[in-house]
Amino acid sequence: MKIAVLGTGMVGKTIGSALIKAGHEVRMGSRTRGNEKALQWVADNGAQASEGAFADAAAFGDLVFVATKGDATLDALRAAGAANLEGKVLVDISNPLDFSKGMPPSLFVCNTDSLGEQIQAAFPAAKVVKTLNIVNCEVMVDAGRSSAQARGTMFVSGNDPAAKKLVTELFLKPWGWDDVIDLGDITTARGTEMMLPVWVRTWAATGNGHFAFKVVR
Amino acid sequence: MKIAVLGTGMVGKTIGSALIKAGHEVRMGSRTRGNEKALQWVADNGAQASEGAFADAAAFGDLVFVATKGDATLDALRAAGAANLEGKVLVDISNPLDFSKGMPPSLFVCNTDSLGEQIQAAFPAAKVVKTLNIVNCEVMVDAGRSSAQARGTMFVSGNDPAAKKLVTELFLKPWGWDDVIDLGDITTARGTEMMLPVWVRTWAATGNGHFAFKVVR
Repeated sequence: MKIAVLGTGMVGKTIGSALIKAGHEVRMGSRTRGNEKALQWVADNGAQASEGAFADAAAFGDLVFVATKGDATLDALRAAGAANLEGKVLVDISNPLDFSKGMPPSLFVCNTDSLGEQIQAAFPAAKVVKTLNIVNCEVMVDAGRSSAQARGTMFVSGNDPAAKKLVTELFLKPWGWDDVIDLGDITTARGTEMMLPVWVRTWAATGNGHFAFKVVR
Repeated sequence: MKIAVLGTGMVGKTIGSALIKAGHEVRMGSRTRGNEKALQWVADNGAQASEGAFADAAAFGDLVFVATKGDATLDALRAAGAANLEGKVLVDISNPLDFSKGMPPSLFVCNTDSLGEQIQAAFPAAKVVKTLNIVNCEVMVDAGRSSAQARGTMFVSGNDPAAKKLVTELFLKPWGWDDVIDLGDITTARGTEMMLPVWVRTWAATGNGHFAFKVVR
């Protein structure tokens, strides 16, 4: 499949490389074509990898991952353009982290709204699926990375059941997520985004970022 | 130990009975002495059980559990009286759930503050320990209740390390919590209180309230 990955940070690069490894063609999107980090990622990932501006990448992809920092997500998607997202599955793995008040971060939207919902509201013709935002990017693409003995649970949120099923079958299961819970519509992204504060504190308390949450039941 | 349990709902009754079973003397507190639910609980729990107004219970207890609904917690503690809480470990298992805007509930405090912090600020001479708020009350007192195969992780938050250790050794471990993570000071209660939205949605999605979250690492 042709896939766009918007964002050139750790998360975008890790997701992009995992998609290449799975046989997809991936175009990494950034604010401007020729971004240094995107060019390096292309050089490292072979012929199936390419890069371009957000709009180039979104136009290229039959499916779009948005892996920017949360406070850049809506701007990146506006730059990508509504027409380039129309009818497409848009996998949102970003988090509304607000570092402006110091560490640990708070959230710039939560409780009665979420970044997932804001994206869906801004791009109603896209099929937003919120997932993977509750783990470190290396765990995102390898659920077994957190522990050899056990794997965590992954949640999916979104208004389109077929889109959630596609994301689960095409990405989550191959990446080792054998326990996926469909929480419901995109408003349930409030719940998973609000897990970030305990994620950050657990990381600080254990000194280990390679963990996941398992719903023991 | 003499323990006060403030609150006569499901949570208070379940915690109170588990404490009696563990050999403690428990006084259940409510707004007025002779509360019908408290009297029934006393009748069901034998000679180690008693009941009284919030202040009677708090004066009786060498340690206090607050198990009221979140929006009643600060009022209950004010009725209990700062003098009756002074120097005592105060185990806060309440959640700042706001049902006024319909279902599912939102939180009336979150992100940059928490109910745990509000309690600690209002009663600076008490040693507030936030814990157990992330599971159903039957799972609180029996971590094995969620699954025969695995147990969840329990978090503790609070400014007094000795108080957190005491709560862990005296209650959490005997109730089956074999994986306890000390998240840090009382500000980390933001993280665990903000797990409630995903708790509520997971409950709705799975139809099963007897679950816990395990930090797989």
